[in-house]
Amino acid sequence: MKIKLLITGGTIDKVYNKLTGELTFDNSHLNEMLERSRSTVDIDSEVLFLKDSLDMTNEDRNLILSKCLECNESKVVITHGTDTMVETARLLGGQIKNKVVVLFGSMIPYSINNSDALFNLGAALSAVQNKTNGVYIAMNGQIFDWNNVCKNKDKGLFEVKK
Amino acid sequence: MKIKLLITGGTIDKVYNKLTGELTFDNSHLNEMLERSRSTVDIDSEVLFLKDSLDMTNEDRNLILSKCLECNESKVVITHGTDTMVETARLLGGQIKNKVVVLFGSMIPYSINNSDALFNLGAALSAVQNKTNGVYIAMNGQIFDWNNVCKNKDKGLFEVKK
Amino acid sequence: MKIKLLITGGTIDKVYNKLTGELTFDNSHLNEMLERSRSTVDIDSEVLFLKDSLDMTNEDRNLILSKCLECNESKVVITHGTDTMVETARLLGGQIKNKVVVLFGSMIPYSINNSDALFNLGAALSAVQNKTNGVYIAMNGQIFDWNNVCKNKDKGLFEVKK
Amino acid sequence: MKIKLLITGGTIDKVYNKLTGELTFDNSHLNEMLERSRSTVDIDSEVLFLKDSLDMTNEDRNLILSKCLECNESKVVITHGTDTMVETARLLGGQIKNKVVVLFGSMIPYSINNSDALFNLGAALSAVQNKTNGVYIAMNGQIFDWNNVCKNKDKGLFEVKK
Repeated sequence: MKIKLLITGGTIDKVYNKLTGELTFDNSHLNEMLERSRSTVDIDSEVLFLKDSLDMTNEDRNLILSKCLECNESKVVITHGTDTMVETARLLGGQIKNKVVVLFGSMIPYSINNSDALFNLGAALSAVQNKTNGVYIAMNGQIFDWNNVCKNKDKGLFEVKK
Repeated sequence: MKIKLLITGGTIDKVYNKLTGELTFDNSHLNEMLERSRSTVDIDSEVLFLKDSLDMTNEDRNLILSKCLECNESKVVITHGTDTMVETARLLGGQIKNKVVVLFGSMIPYSINNSDALFNLGAALSAVQNKTNGVYIAMNGQIFDWNNVCKNKDKGLFEVKK
Repeated sequence: MKIKLLITGGTIDKVYNKLTGELTFDNSHLNEMLERSRSTVDIDSEVLFLKDSLDMTNEDRNLILSKCLECNESKVVITHGTDTMVETARLLGGQIKNKVVVLFGSMIPYSINNSDALFNLGAALSAVQNKTNGVYIAMNGQIFDWNNVCKNKDKGLFEVKK
Repeated sequence: MKIKLLITGGTIDKVYNKLTGELTFDNSHLNEMLERSRSTVDIDSEVLFLKDSLDMTNEDRNLILSKCLECNESKVVITHGTDTMVETARLLGGQIKNKVVVLFGSMIPYSINNSDALFNLGAALSAVQNKTNGVYIAMNGQIFDWNNVCKNKDKGLFEVKK
């Protein structure tokens, strides 16, 4: 069972730039995270772009959608910034019916102490192998359906939409 | 959906003792790991004992079994040392039919750089919520059936039994 | 031999704010760093303020100067952002003649993987105990005289002024 | 000013072996530590051996002594296990009169969370540049004279000999 990993940036891949003092992207750390996790899952990863999800355009989201539809794998995990993860999930959820797609990210970059990144990666990889076809968000240890989730920005948590 | 977390020790909870230079147990770090992971899953955790799984007795394994059978929750995750995790899974798998039970641990202690502990915790928590009744081992990003898994001690990996 | 530790903020004490995605101050981590370092040096620490050194005013610098002059200790270490550390060192160097004062900070926050913070703390504490009276900057493993140092912003390093 | 770094093993360089569950040596992490510390000090490092200091022989200690005496540099830092660091310091202190030699190590391996290794490296490097000729131990933020220091094994600290 091969899994496609689409990488789009987000907090999970941000690093501290010591010259500017800003959090920015250099390159993705997902392969390093998978190695550290001692994952033996058959994964084909691809970096689409590395962006803060607030900077994503409709074109970016459509690229994610087309990659999900076109890839050979029937199971897809996607790294994504948390701020517009729900919006992308809605786009994918309306269009993808015969694959399992799981979006995830982290509230704290992998490069920072106390990051939730590895936990969320584990949850997402496990979910994509065990859920039925559909689009999901794996955050906070829960697997949310794409049409029933929102981000509570005050708490920094994902929760079921009220 | 409430989940029971049974804690039994294993590499995942070992820490360096700076006076003796040995890796030993002080107390469990699972609650700290769940907090760091920003988990909002409803979890009731209980420390049964903190042991290297090579030191586990039949009595210890029977305690794990009875705790699984007796608890109110129908979903149980168990931390366990990797060396005899398969043995405990076999005992549980033969006896537990109407619950989802997922065992996990780590190859490198949570307290050591480059640990796989958080990843495995995420995978196990996700699996226990999504698998059908049965007993499983969540390691290396995979969810193995209890009666079809072994630890490859040369590689330090779990794999499907040949 | 008692040492005064004046804390003023800077990169060394910045943490990631998971709600805003910005690096900000919550409180100082210097005491945690000293405990981790197993320091037995007799240190009296005081937080003057927690600021990015680009935001420091003349008033802030004069507060640092007066604290150095007024404290009972003849040995003072000061945490400081790197961007204007040289400027503060010059103010202190022109006024303080009968004490040892060592400024330090870090290029990467203590809260971020791969930080140089602990190394610089060790170097500064060692220097303040062993240098003759004067004002110094301890960065990059070197102890620079206040009137002969500059920050190379392109390289993110301190070096002798050319 | 060039500094010689002699590497002999000790807790500071131990790593967790995930196959055996033991703390062992693979190779030295001192160069990685210096890079992380953004040190610009001119250092020539040499691995003599990687041993637990309880396993050091008289031959090992004599090798350290001869390396200190023979090297071109007049400033030498030495990584060393803490258990017999005082013993080696005594051998060197009785023989080396015209160089500055600083021994250091750590109570917790560099590879383990919460290690004191980087702090001690910073303190040692700073001390070797600022002390007068002699042999010293840099631990716990203090710089001890070789003939006036002991390890308090109950507390896991170095202190002045009573």
